[in-house]
Amino acid sequence: MAHGAGGRATQTLIEAVFLDAFRNPLLEPLEDGAVIQVPAFTAPGGACARLAFTTDSYVVSPLFFPGGDIGDLAVNGTVNDLAVCGARPLYLSAGFVLEEGFPVEDLRRVAASMARAAAAAGVAIVTGDTKVVQRGKADGCYVTTAGVGLLDRDTRLGVARARPGDAVLVSGPIGEHGVTIMLARGELDIEADVTSDTAPLNGLITALLQATGAVRCLRDATRGGVATILNEIARASGVAVVVDEDAVPVRPDVRGACELLGIDPLYVACEGRVVVVVAGEAAEEALAALRGHPLGAGAAIIGRVAADPPGLVLLRTAFGGTRIVDVLVGDPLPRIC
Amino acid sequence: MAHGAGGRATQTLIEAVFLDAFRNPLLEPLEDGAVIQVPAFTAPGGACARLAFTTDSYVVSPLFFPGGDIGDLAVNGTVNDLAVCGARPLYLSAGFVLEEGFPVEDLRRVAASMARAAAAAGVAIVTGDTKVVQRGKADGCYVTTAGVGLLDRDTRLGVARARPGDAVLVSGPIGEHGVTIMLARGELDIEADVTSDTAPLNGLITALLQATGAVRCLRDATRGGVATILNEIARASGVAVVVDEDAVPVRPDVRGACELLGIDPLYVACEGRVVVVVAGEAAEEALAALRGHPLGAGAAIIGRVAADPPGLVLLRTAFGGTRIVDVLVGDPLPRIC
Repeated sequence: MAHGAGGRATQTLIEAVFLDAFRNPLLEPLEDGAVIQVPAFTAPGGACARLAFTTDSYVVSPLFFPGGDIGDLAVNGTVNDLAVCGARPLYLSAGFVLEEGFPVEDLRRVAASMARAAAAAGVAIVTGDTKVVQRGKADGCYVTTAGVGLLDRDTRLGVARARPGDAVLVSGPIGEHGVTIMLARGELDIEADVTSDTAPLNGLITALLQATGAVRCLRDATRGGVATILNEIARASGVAVVVDEDAVPVRPDVRGACELLGIDPLYVACEGRVVVVVAGEAAEEALAALRGHPLGAGAAIIGRVAADPPGLVLLRTAFGGTRIVDVLVGDPLPRIC
Repeated sequence: MAHGAGGRATQTLIEAVFLDAFRNPLLEPLEDGAVIQVPAFTAPGGACARLAFTTDSYVVSPLFFPGGDIGDLAVNGTVNDLAVCGARPLYLSAGFVLEEGFPVEDLRRVAASMARAAAAAGVAIVTGDTKVVQRGKADGCYVTTAGVGLLDRDTRLGVARARPGDAVLVSGPIGEHGVTIMLARGELDIEADVTSDTAPLNGLITALLQATGAVRCLRDATRGGVATILNEIARASGVAVVVDEDAVPVRPDVRGACELLGIDPLYVACEGRVVVVVAGEAAEEALAALRGHPLGAGAAIIGRVAADPPGLVLLRTAFGGTRIVDVLVGDPLPRIC
């Protein structure tokens, strides 16, 4: 199960099996999506057209949860993976694997939720596929979305672009999606007023990229949470990321649930929050741009990029100490998305 | 299970649930892929760039079978869906849903097979995702591929473009993939020397489209077989399709297995055969183009398009009779792809 958790085991699996087998320059950066130059086609102004292409499979359990369901999660997730590439999401595909006996009413509900999410994000679901497997060979419904977007501006983003002096931001309180899913399973005797933060981030990201040209890297903090994203950035850029624990926005209900579960909110999945690395001098500008959008109202500067120690994420704790925030190991929250 | 078989129940499900929820002009033709005009970008010559975008989920059981496995099946299937849109397949995504405990060695084998298939088809797998579900919530490994291709020429293809007088061809013997999968399950006491026909059809289709500009419609005959494709064409074009049973190429081993199983080979899935509708006067030219390619060596003209009765597929049997070939009902061959 740890191989699906988005942490160290997932990374090892992807590098040892898939990257090794499929190796090519577009896959190699292992970003949330591939940015493709299409030489035969030119953009207005004569530049080479650039497309972004991404995919995600969704196996969340339960299928329906406070604040969303597998349908809007699958649409928003792919929209967000395109948006963090700097692309304008345009077209989505949807592949369904259904378990024999899955109620058609539930499928209609998922489809309606996908349609609403697509409309909200300004994308169209243009192609799809449906397979059915026998009872006991799936868990109701799995959805795989892929998406295509266009890069309108000459934005160059990537986890390898962080530099010492950069600022690190998140667009809102973290951990809400993961905690919502854990509680929705009803296996824990915890009551909390938490809903998933699943949302399309393309509007927010457009506002950010219009406000400043100094963005180095964007990633949505899904499986493995903010901690895993920051580790990817530290590793790929050869820098340290220093996070102020006090500055990280976490709602009290999420914090309380995480304490009871013994999980650090930094490792808990969000589905509507983006981690932003931006040049230090543009930090306030970026913060203002995020806060000016309804989905970024709770944005915060949570840390900065330093030169040393390269490849590590450090947390300055509320008590004045410093500890290393490692990549997620194991899977405390299976099938969160 | 019938909802996943590619026949009438699948069609009803897609129309009643997905088309209803997602309705948009690109999805509505319900072709194997969506052809997208990208107004911001221009092709050489000044035309509007056209992209094809498609997806398929693969749940075949067993994962490994004579002639292929879920990996090359997933790559070839998406390559073929792009090719039958008239597009040059370029980039693929791959989403994996793995069952806890699925052997890493098997995953490596699938990935290696995907890499070989991608190289053979001239495409790159540029983005992907992996999820893991608990034991008993999948069946080893499901793969969803999506693909992007470019339409280089101004080809307009579609199931609604068949006209009376057109000829109907298949690119080779039918039913081999479906029969191979049935026998590979080992539940039947039938021995036959059959292997899957899984193959990338983009090279064959390019040869065909270069040879003649008179192609009306291309479809790869997967789930539901040639019979289901012909019914889609008859319905969408408002024409009759008249097939000569004697002209349909079926290998003796496939025919024998189908007889023992009580299944008509016309309903059995191929994974490397294309159904071609072409203007009557270009039939021989198209046949020669197909036969000139190694994957089309067994191509044949199997019938013609007539005006009446509209919407029906008729089979002239070897005994001189005529019977209606209906859309597939039920699911004689579950999880064939």
